[in-house]
Amino acid sequence: MTSRTTADLVVKARWILPVEPAGRVFENHAVVVTGGRIVAITPCAALSEYPAREVMDRPDHVLIPGLVNAHTHAAMTLFRGIGGGHNVDDWLRQLIWPLESRLVDADFIADGTELAIAEMLLGGVTCFADMYFHPDVTAQVAARSGIRACIGLPVLEQPTGWAQGLDEYLERSLELRDRYRSDPLIDTCFAVHSPSLTQDSTLSRLRTLADQLQSLVMIHLLESPSERARETRRHGRGPLERLESAGLVNDLLLAVHCVQADTAEIGRLSLAGASIVHCPASNLKLASGIAPVPEMIDAGLNVALGTDGAASNDSLDVLGEARLAALLAAGVTGRPNAITPAMALEMATLAGARALGIAETTGSLASGKWADIACLKLAGPRADPVLDVAESILNAAGRSAVTDVWVAGRPLVTDGRLSRIDVTALGERARRWGTRVLAARASLAGQ
Amino acid sequence: MTSRTTADLVVKARWILPVEPAGRVFENHAVVVTGGRIVAITPCAALSEYPAREVMDRPDHVLIPGLVNAHTHAAMTLFRGIGGGHNVDDWLRQLIWPLESRLVDADFIADGTELAIAEMLLGGVTCFADMYFHPDVTAQVAARSGIRACIGLPVLEQPTGWAQGLDEYLERSLELRDRYRSDPLIDTCFAVHSPSLTQDSTLSRLRTLADQLQSLVMIHLLESPSERARETRRHGRGPLERLESAGLVNDLLLAVHCVQADTAEIGRLSLAGASIVHCPASNLKLASGIAPVPEMIDAGLNVALGTDGAASNDSLDVLGEARLAALLAAGVTGRPNAITPAMALEMATLAGARALGIAETTGSLASGKWADIACLKLAGPRADPVLDVAESILNAAGRSAVTDVWVAGRPLVTDGRLSRIDVTALGERARRWGTRVLAARASLAGQ
Repeated sequence: MTSRTTADLVVKARWILPVEPAGRVFENHAVVVTGGRIVAITPCAALSEYPAREVMDRPDHVLIPGLVNAHTHAAMTLFRGIGGGHNVDDWLRQLIWPLESRLVDADFIADGTELAIAEMLLGGVTCFADMYFHPDVTAQVAARSGIRACIGLPVLEQPTGWAQGLDEYLERSLELRDRYRSDPLIDTCFAVHSPSLTQDSTLSRLRTLADQLQSLVMIHLLESPSERARETRRHGRGPLERLESAGLVNDLLLAVHCVQADTAEIGRLSLAGASIVHCPASNLKLASGIAPVPEMIDAGLNVALGTDGAASNDSLDVLGEARLAALLAAGVTGRPNAITPAMALEMATLAGARALGIAETTGSLASGKWADIACLKLAGPRADPVLDVAESILNAAGRSAVTDVWVAGRPLVTDGRLSRIDVTALGERARRWGTRVLAARASLAGQ
Repeated sequence: MTSRTTADLVVKARWILPVEPAGRVFENHAVVVTGGRIVAITPCAALSEYPAREVMDRPDHVLIPGLVNAHTHAAMTLFRGIGGGHNVDDWLRQLIWPLESRLVDADFIADGTELAIAEMLLGGVTCFADMYFHPDVTAQVAARSGIRACIGLPVLEQPTGWAQGLDEYLERSLELRDRYRSDPLIDTCFAVHSPSLTQDSTLSRLRTLADQLQSLVMIHLLESPSERARETRRHGRGPLERLESAGLVNDLLLAVHCVQADTAEIGRLSLAGASIVHCPASNLKLASGIAPVPEMIDAGLNVALGTDGAASNDSLDVLGEARLAALLAAGVTGRPNAITPAMALEMATLAGARALGIAETTGSLASGKWADIACLKLAGPRADPVLDVAESILNAAGRSAVTDVWVAGRPLVTDGRLSRIDVTALGERARRWGTRVLAARASLAGQ
């Protein structure tokens, strides 16, 4: 950009933590944005080179890349708080699947997804990867909101309100994929619930499709303590072996959870170039355990972060997950630096973008990338004094400090307020759903 | 109270979670306050019996007992964010003690304590137990702020700016204790850093004093993985054995951390009627590990929560600690109900009051107790819909939802704003201290 072009936006900030280069913090710099992209990160003193239509001053704030929630079930916000007291297997079978079969329709997905997007944006999340029902509705709501999303295309065998069997799921999925192919914000991937719910023939068919289209495959893997033994009894092979036989363990694989992955499995996932999505709060809450993340990182795996759905969390707080990941790593390994604050912030941003195959265009603050940015105020009784910017973001300020969020340069949160979502109307709809969810649970209990 | 008396304050709320009776949630009830104490919790429909000078309506909110931070080093907020990357032993010896010897004086304590109180009040904390230097200053700042506090009287052998040796520490401590004996908000206890820093003769002398005065003794115990072996090598007995020999293991003991306590030690602490203060974030961050809290609870121990100081956390977020305690318990034991949300909220309130010996007068919302209350708004994109009040408080809304806080009926936070602390001036002082802390650390590194 020459000095003669006028930029769309300049955001001046006390600090910029760009994630790339790793560990760097710029002081009194500004991000210059044109056409939705970052065109420069420059000292404020040199801003005369960049005339701009709009200049924002954030004197007590830090700019970081927008957070990436690499695994969620967005619409499950409408089940927030209902999942306590169950391990993952009972939670699915006794609670969640019965509730879903009674309640989940296109309206549920629309309202639940919008609620999730509102929460995520207010917490600095600019991109999420979703796995749930009615993905066309999820995509539509995401597109309207302006957030970046990777919509999971359900590869299911069981009938739902969206499709009757595998053929129809795949047909509708490919149609949806085509619909958003030229959209810069909405991406898609294949989403398989888990090896245990999927036949070998389905896995093979998926492999062919994913390879042809070079499309990511997201799958829950090795989550619960009982999964490997149960699957091995049933199929003669463990869950990872079945994915390997199908040819699905490669650099298109997004393996979610992997709480129970052993050293050999970690090695094979790493060799294959797969990405892991670590969901520490959900894994603890559902009593699955603590994923061996430091070992995964040592093995060279790309480890992203996910909140999982609100029914097992019950927040969509990516910065909170990053803090928890770092704390757990230190406490479990005895190495206080197993995951440094800089590493945790990279997991919450760039590693998520890598996992979703979009690290060329987002995940860090760098010239040429989309202006996907979160701004946090590091001042006040929760943040003062700031002795280490990354520590303060992660361990003190947290998501409540988020003041502004841009996705592809568009302001979606300004001064703590959502610009495109009517939170009052959304809250009323969410509370009406809450009443229906409680009634449905009562009817389950009465059976 | 008869219907003819006019109450000072009535707070009507959508929900009240009083902690006692355990597990109860009242809907559309109000708390009636007179003379700083709760005189009734009553259905809003019956409020005509309670004319009041002031009536507040909190229609989307829950009232809970004010949170109790049962172990902190308040003034260490001025070291916020500096402690990353060290295990507890290196953190103390290489970083914290050298910084303290350069920086900590009465002014540091005054500003750091006020900053801590501001953060705690905004996060719903109405009572804290402190262990640090210059306790007279801490007590003075706490008293001015209106918060409830238990000020640790340092039992030290090493000279500091406050006293030259054990005799002077004890003399000044007893004087300070007398000064606040009739203050309903400021209490004191003896505070011993750890067995490793304290001679047997000092422990004996302390025992006599504590018994005579029936005063609590707070001590860091079995925190780091190396402590038991190192102490046993040095003294021929482990840290708990040394306290037992001195006669200090009884119902006046507040044993902080106990990360490394084994089954036998847990049994002995329980038999003695001691209380434990669990500081999960600090224990993880300093790579000490995860305290066996479910085992402690099963053994009948009273387990309270503490944030520890901000230099090893780096927040003073008691609700966050409660969430972390519950998540860790589920993840480590494989029992999703090891610590239920109701139990976690009790740990954050009533168990803290029990540990500090003030459960008769605070720690739950009940007639006759002080009106120490936190009000949280459970509405908006982080909380909707509310399907389970305790889950929503703990796992969704968190401390950012706190709107109002009363201590002994006095409003210290109203609509998210501190009524007695000037946060702008405080922030400026904190940032000036930040500059001095960074300079001191640079001088350490240069040695």
